[in-house]
Amino acid sequence: MLHYGEKVWLISDAYLPEHSSGRFPSHESVCLLNTGETDAKVHITLYFEDKEPMTGFKINCLASRTLHVRMDQLTSEDGQSVPVGVPYAILVESDQPIVVQYSRMDTSQPEMALMTTMAYKG
Amino acid sequence: MLHYGEKVWLISDAYLPEHSSGRFPSHESVCLLNTGETDAKVHITLYFEDKEPMTGFKINCLASRTLHVRMDQLTSEDGQSVPVGVPYAILVESDQPIVVQYSRMDTSQPEMALMTTMAYKG
Amino acid sequence: MLHYGEKVWLISDAYLPEHSSGRFPSHESVCLLNTGETDAKVHITLYFEDKEPMTGFKINCLASRTLHVRMDQLTSEDGQSVPVGVPYAILVESDQPIVVQYSRMDTSQPEMALMTTMAYKG
Amino acid sequence: MLHYGEKVWLISDAYLPEHSSGRFPSHESVCLLNTGETDAKVHITLYFEDKEPMTGFKINCLASRTLHVRMDQLTSEDGQSVPVGVPYAILVESDQPIVVQYSRMDTSQPEMALMTTMAYKG
Repeated sequence: MLHYGEKVWLISDAYLPEHSSGRFPSHESVCLLNTGETDAKVHITLYFEDKEPMTGFKINCLASRTLHVRMDQLTSEDGQSVPVGVPYAILVESDQPIVVQYSRMDTSQPEMALMTTMAYKG
Repeated sequence: MLHYGEKVWLISDAYLPEHSSGRFPSHESVCLLNTGETDAKVHITLYFEDKEPMTGFKINCLASRTLHVRMDQLTSEDGQSVPVGVPYAILVESDQPIVVQYSRMDTSQPEMALMTTMAYKG
Repeated sequence: MLHYGEKVWLISDAYLPEHSSGRFPSHESVCLLNTGETDAKVHITLYFEDKEPMTGFKINCLASRTLHVRMDQLTSEDGQSVPVGVPYAILVESDQPIVVQYSRMDTSQPEMALMTTMAYKG
Repeated sequence: MLHYGEKVWLISDAYLPEHSSGRFPSHESVCLLNTGETDAKVHITLYFEDKEPMTGFKINCLASRTLHVRMDQLTSEDGQSVPVGVPYAILVESDQPIVVQYSRMDTSQPEMALMTTMAYKG
């Protein structure tokens, strides 16, 4: 099994909607895929329009596994959550090659909307 | 006619919704395009968050043809289907260069939502 | 002004929905951007799952212009249109560098769904 | 901190919907991420199907910051706005490496639709 991907990925358009309706809460997922044989230690940094970046979000994506990181459920080492209703951006740094895709489900209005894109490899 | 594309493609955010409504079932498509003159033998591997990868999904994308693989209709050599309602990821391996795009239609709520992205070339 | 882009682009997941509702018809757009100083002659080829490719779709994207090609309004030199309700794929070939993005609006159900992706550069 | 990204980005499919409904106005965002230590001066040029490009849209994306540029709120140096209901395309030029993602929310019909893609790096 080859080890596909890159160690750095970026997402410029992140936003956690404030409102939800229907069957699903509005949410964002940063989806990691580790096809390699070594667990990946992943650090996530958040960038904002008007304040310093937030760091300390650490997760592991195990070997031969995917991990769909729900940004609304992520907490940093010092207990901070991702701010809601604020434009932000995401830097993903891994010690192993991984593949990163970003998706958002918005249920602010009664029906859902979806969007997705491969992240940009840094 | 040139033979465009790559032999390895990855999709980190795959998910087969459990619910459907209206005219269309919720579904995902892994869309293959083979512009070359040789049929492509394609192997699909599925990665999960908490269990070993599933293999044995084999399809052919003929020369000068496209194939829009419906993940909800795909079965492996030993008769297994893609699990529903579970986050997963997809590795596409082909013996010929192809181009791979991933799309999802979600009709869990009465109206549909769509998303698409080119897969990541490995 | 530099001349950005590539001469060959591919889109694996094309599909012209059969149904429409509300304010807008369901449609697909293949969006071309020519930032250069020379008009671009563009050939579009369509690939199908079970028949030979269709050729003969020719358009021009003028210098310093964009062109959002509506696939439901495109006709080939011999008067053929893009088939409706059939999975297909698209090859875009240009004699000048251009940038190609694909989008679909689906209004099959009362509300619309949108999806977009940069095409794959061949 | 490394300085990720590129200095030139392109988006072929831009369109500011004329209609809105519900909680949110229809809008497009050109989302910039500057992970570097130097503020980025960014110039945006708009391309149209049938007229000369519009220039003079200048913005700054500060060091270690993101900026989600709302195209419906952007004005040029001579006070011009982005035309509504017209197909156009976008060239983003920065004096520092940045990462650019494009998203559209369309609320023309009562529920929203979303789409996103990484821009094409020039």
